[in-house]
Amino acid sequence: MRLLLYTAGSDADAWIDALRHALPAARIEPWPGPAASAADYALVWKAPPELLRDLRRVKAVFNLGAGVDAIVGDPALPPEVCLVRLEDAGMAEQMAEYVCHAVLRRYREFDAYAQQQRAGLWQPRRRTSKRAFGVGILGLGALGTAVATALTPFGFPLRGWSRARKQIAGIATFAGASELDAFLSGACVLVCLLPLTRDTQGLLDRATLSQLPRDAYVVNVSRGALVVDQDLLALLDSGHIGGAMLDVFRDEPLPPEHRFWHHPRVALTPHISAVTQVDESVAQIADKIRRIEAGLPITGIVARERGY
Amino acid sequence: MRLLLYTAGSDADAWIDALRHALPAARIEPWPGPAASAADYALVWKAPPELLRDLRRVKAVFNLGAGVDAIVGDPALPPEVCLVRLEDAGMAEQMAEYVCHAVLRRYREFDAYAQQQRAGLWQPRRRTSKRAFGVGILGLGALGTAVATALTPFGFPLRGWSRARKQIAGIATFAGASELDAFLSGACVLVCLLPLTRDTQGLLDRATLSQLPRDAYVVNVSRGALVVDQDLLALLDSGHIGGAMLDVFRDEPLPPEHRFWHHPRVALTPHISAVTQVDESVAQIADKIRRIEAGLPITGIVARERGY
Repeated sequence: MRLLLYTAGSDADAWIDALRHALPAARIEPWPGPAASAADYALVWKAPPELLRDLRRVKAVFNLGAGVDAIVGDPALPPEVCLVRLEDAGMAEQMAEYVCHAVLRRYREFDAYAQQQRAGLWQPRRRTSKRAFGVGILGLGALGTAVATALTPFGFPLRGWSRARKQIAGIATFAGASELDAFLSGACVLVCLLPLTRDTQGLLDRATLSQLPRDAYVVNVSRGALVVDQDLLALLDSGHIGGAMLDVFRDEPLPPEHRFWHHPRVALTPHISAVTQVDESVAQIADKIRRIEAGLPITGIVARERGY
Repeated sequence: MRLLLYTAGSDADAWIDALRHALPAARIEPWPGPAASAADYALVWKAPPELLRDLRRVKAVFNLGAGVDAIVGDPALPPEVCLVRLEDAGMAEQMAEYVCHAVLRRYREFDAYAQQQRAGLWQPRRRTSKRAFGVGILGLGALGTAVATALTPFGFPLRGWSRARKQIAGIATFAGASELDAFLSGACVLVCLLPLTRDTQGLLDRATLSQLPRDAYVVNVSRGALVVDQDLLALLDSGHIGGAMLDVFRDEPLPPEHRFWHHPRVALTPHISAVTQVDESVAQIADKIRRIEAGLPITGIVARERGY
């Protein structure tokens, strides 16, 4: 069995090592090198069109991340190819850590206390009622659901929104465009975990962000292009949005001149909320390859027309 | 039944309202006012000696906080009086929020990322292995146990230390002076939740803090006097201790000239990690009064000679 590997330069050796252990009978072939057209499976991250174009013979292309927006719309990828995304693979735990931190940071006003410390001000702040502090999760896939589960013990009123209706215990769920405003109106913290698709591109613009309650906090951990940066900045400037914690951006690295860098209401991190874990990912991919070889169904196949 | 109330000026009206609802047959008497010697029960916070001295007739004195260090050693309090501390009463939940935030903040290096943001630096940092990131809880009472429970889902290796040995599922427990160094040596984050007593005063000095692994993080949410400030500062300066999040201090408000205010490795908050919740506290106290009146035993009685 021939496995083609393209990691966009990051940590290729670690992937090769892990794959050799998990699939000892396979030939692991980093690209560029052998012809992509000879591969049985391809494992790729941000692959160039000349690679994708040759993947006519593969049984599956595994995207080395949860978000497939960098590949799903690429016209070079043959339409009949089975594209598979990573599911969790160690990312849900990291995402839960990041989001729990962000929600507690906001609820307990640690940024305001840091400001008071800089000013030498000893001043306990009036506690926000937890019952009135709704946390809204935009996107209820594997990561959104894991984040909701991690937040549950803290007792915040949780609400979630997804394209198609879902039922999750302990969460008020909303679905589809018609219920988006109602969802947003109760989210003191909005956690964005949607995939980037044609439908979600620019979804968080002035109109939608204005539906959030005054002084809301925006946490974006999925893709930068879901947010219209200028609209978010305008609402941060006006104070309608009280703060934002951003891990993802339209252009990464975030360009030095971007206002997010030094906006007093923005905390940013360099796309580290949940990074692909090589060992967990390889175990998941190897398991799926064995299932495909055995003629069994697998999960995580991307619906190309839907975009995720 | 006559209830004497002394709240050191904070929010007396809220206490009176809640007590009237919970114990409609009782006479609530704020002090100064009636003679303390006529009271059946006293509810006090940081009461002056002239009040304590007169409490000879009361069936119990309820301390309006979990820490009794401000009253237990006061020679004005008659030795035969039954002193009762608050147990949890809404504080455990707040403490869990504060500590989970502090641990995630440290583990995911959000302070380092904030520094990078100020410097305009886009640089993902190497992830710390969670298996090597021990979190140590000093003090396994109601609050320490609640904090451990709240941390459990995040998967950090947890260890706890207490005076007398305790068994708690999922935590490596250590007990007594002879096991303190072993406990400290595995605590990348040290969370201090001990009561302040003769034995714990100044417990965290240069000798004990030096047992922590290099670059450890210290979270103090119990009492400032557990820490020898100059020793903590020296170890922060040397880098042996990587950072501290401090909510409690020897003198509160923290004096303006104290170095903690502007130390680059210190985040501080004005004693807000867990504040007494009036409604929950009154419900707990009213329940205990009803039990005493019915001749039933109660929990939370302070062992005066032990100090908590």
